[in-house]
Amino acid sequence: MVLTLDKVIQGIEPLKDEWRKKARSHIDNLTMPRGSLGEVLVIAERLAAIKETLKPSVNRKAIVTMAGDHGVVEEGVSAYPQEVTPQMVANFVAGGAAINVLASVAGARVIVVDMGVAQDLGELVQQGEILSYKVDYGTKNMCKGPAMTREQAVQSLEAGIRIAGHLVEEGVDLLGTGDMGIGNTTPSSAILAALSGLSVAEITGRGTGVDDVGLSKKIQAIKKALEINKPDPNDAVDVLAKVGGFEIGGIAGLILGAAYCRVPVVVDGLISTAGALLAHALAPASADYMFAGHVSREPGHRHMLRRLGLRPLLDLDLRLGEGTGAALAMPIIEGAAQVIGKMATFEQASVSRSVEERQSEQDLIGEGTKAVSIP
Amino acid sequence: MVLTLDKVIQGIEPLKDEWRKKARSHIDNLTMPRGSLGEVLVIAERLAAIKETLKPSVNRKAIVTMAGDHGVVEEGVSAYPQEVTPQMVANFVAGGAAINVLASVAGARVIVVDMGVAQDLGELVQQGEILSYKVDYGTKNMCKGPAMTREQAVQSLEAGIRIAGHLVEEGVDLLGTGDMGIGNTTPSSAILAALSGLSVAEITGRGTGVDDVGLSKKIQAIKKALEINKPDPNDAVDVLAKVGGFEIGGIAGLILGAAYCRVPVVVDGLISTAGALLAHALAPASADYMFAGHVSREPGHRHMLRRLGLRPLLDLDLRLGEGTGAALAMPIIEGAAQVIGKMATFEQASVSRSVEERQSEQDLIGEGTKAVSIP
Repeated sequence: MVLTLDKVIQGIEPLKDEWRKKARSHIDNLTMPRGSLGEVLVIAERLAAIKETLKPSVNRKAIVTMAGDHGVVEEGVSAYPQEVTPQMVANFVAGGAAINVLASVAGARVIVVDMGVAQDLGELVQQGEILSYKVDYGTKNMCKGPAMTREQAVQSLEAGIRIAGHLVEEGVDLLGTGDMGIGNTTPSSAILAALSGLSVAEITGRGTGVDDVGLSKKIQAIKKALEINKPDPNDAVDVLAKVGGFEIGGIAGLILGAAYCRVPVVVDGLISTAGALLAHALAPASADYMFAGHVSREPGHRHMLRRLGLRPLLDLDLRLGEGTGAALAMPIIEGAAQVIGKMATFEQASVSRSVEERQSEQDLIGEGTKAVSIP
Repeated sequence: MVLTLDKVIQGIEPLKDEWRKKARSHIDNLTMPRGSLGEVLVIAERLAAIKETLKPSVNRKAIVTMAGDHGVVEEGVSAYPQEVTPQMVANFVAGGAAINVLASVAGARVIVVDMGVAQDLGELVQQGEILSYKVDYGTKNMCKGPAMTREQAVQSLEAGIRIAGHLVEEGVDLLGTGDMGIGNTTPSSAILAALSGLSVAEITGRGTGVDDVGLSKKIQAIKKALEINKPDPNDAVDVLAKVGGFEIGGIAGLILGAAYCRVPVVVDGLISTAGALLAHALAPASADYMFAGHVSREPGHRHMLRRLGLRPLLDLDLRLGEGTGAALAMPIIEGAAQVIGKMATFEQASVSRSVEERQSEQDLIGEGTKAVSIP
């Protein structure tokens, strides 16, 4: 069965309160002072509710790094030449990039996808080194008209959905997002500006490292693109088509597909989170399945995470992309899954509780809602 | 050769600028925009300088969880009864505690040490389940006099040094610290107050979760202990003896031993960082070998990290101890080691550089300090 965008959007369900409560009761009964693992326990609760089990598994991890090019580089918005996109794809394939080494530490596969690189990557596709869902050879310059057609926007979203579906079928139980595309912080900031109405100057940063002139060019390019294209903030597909990118659409689709399949997805930095914003705009419940790997140095990223209600797991001044922030955060997600799935309860370990905990346990029993205990 | 405290203190060397520079040159040449992995690169640089190689290895990891009891619990400073210390040691041995599952995700062994539990743990020692460097059956109540003698303080420090030495001999190349001891946030805050002169009320928190009455008892107990014992802020052994704990001395010794052996050590939360403060007071260069796993919710912890000049890798509202924050942070350290050790350089991967990077590379060559490149 081929999953369409509409079907997936309709099929994404918010997490059930019943499972959140069940998880919380169990967590409160584990051998540690209540709440003492902080955010790790919030993650654990969410993992249990996503997978509807008190032993959620996130052992089979994959990071999907989506590559695409951007017509807007004509405007001088990046410090790097466009040829770096395919060069870095080749570097991913050779295993020499940051995402390769960091995914390896996390025990995650890296799947590289050509969503719309401006160069032909047919050879790498034939060798089975990368997947191709190429929509086109780079987007058009959004300062002169829409980056892509509406059909291409839907195509990029459905590509991501399909990739998520295949990976989940293969057994992947934790997904991560990543990106590669020279110039792609520009459309990412444009997406945030279009959806939020925030000031372009406030949310636009230096990306991979442009100087003051480059930054001013970026801000001008985004303003111009918004002015010319007038993306409809209530229509995420329109926003993606007019000021987005193929890899950003692919990432949004991957997140929607993950949410549809009830698989948690670790979102990387600015570009990935632009995808997450689109996914959230299309299906608000998809945010229940997202974890923010980190908060980057790009000023727009914090705004994005706030809109999504996500707390970043790391704050290490990363601004690389590729999925590196997702990879670095994955062991924390895995740790949270193991905490709920494998720790002993007070009863199992014969550990005494605090006075307060004994009291509240007593209250729970009194209410007839005794804490769940795994045998 | 038995390492004495004095010998170790004299033998700890600050990192060499030469190695920091060598590492930075190499990192600047890896296939990513300069500095784009933020703090991960700072860690990588430090690892290279600690191990004096551009391929630092941190694969053989061990977390040492030091247990001890505290006479000050008489003052009602903890929400838990003292019997929980040996109960949790048994839980560590059975593998049911948070540190067990989180260390397992990080690929780290857990070594549990009886530094001074108030109960006899001889059976677990004989079974080889835990190490014993027991100094005594719990410290004395520091509100009534010194927590331990000066000799006991040195003994606990040298125990930690010895454990570090043994583990490094066995091949361990990344150490983590952890603690277990009902009541031990009280001596930890007292150590900070004694060394820093900061206000006790400002730096004292709820530990594992005392209520307002408990918090006020803690603050009173610390004030009283400082008043009665008058620890000398310029003599860390005196501070440890008067208001410290056996496991805190053990942790301080472990850190000193790690620094002496040039092995990086990931410091956990409040209690471990109290140990780190003592290590730093005894041998300031030891801070070069420390990484702060996280910043806890305990108000004193932030102050401690500031004194040590350490940036925490995680900020997840943890307040459990055991080494959990060290375990959660270890994969980041491992990632940093792999980034410097395994990523391709621009030359190796034939990736184009930004205009600015090409310029600065040119400048370097001009200066006759060409970036180091691993063949």
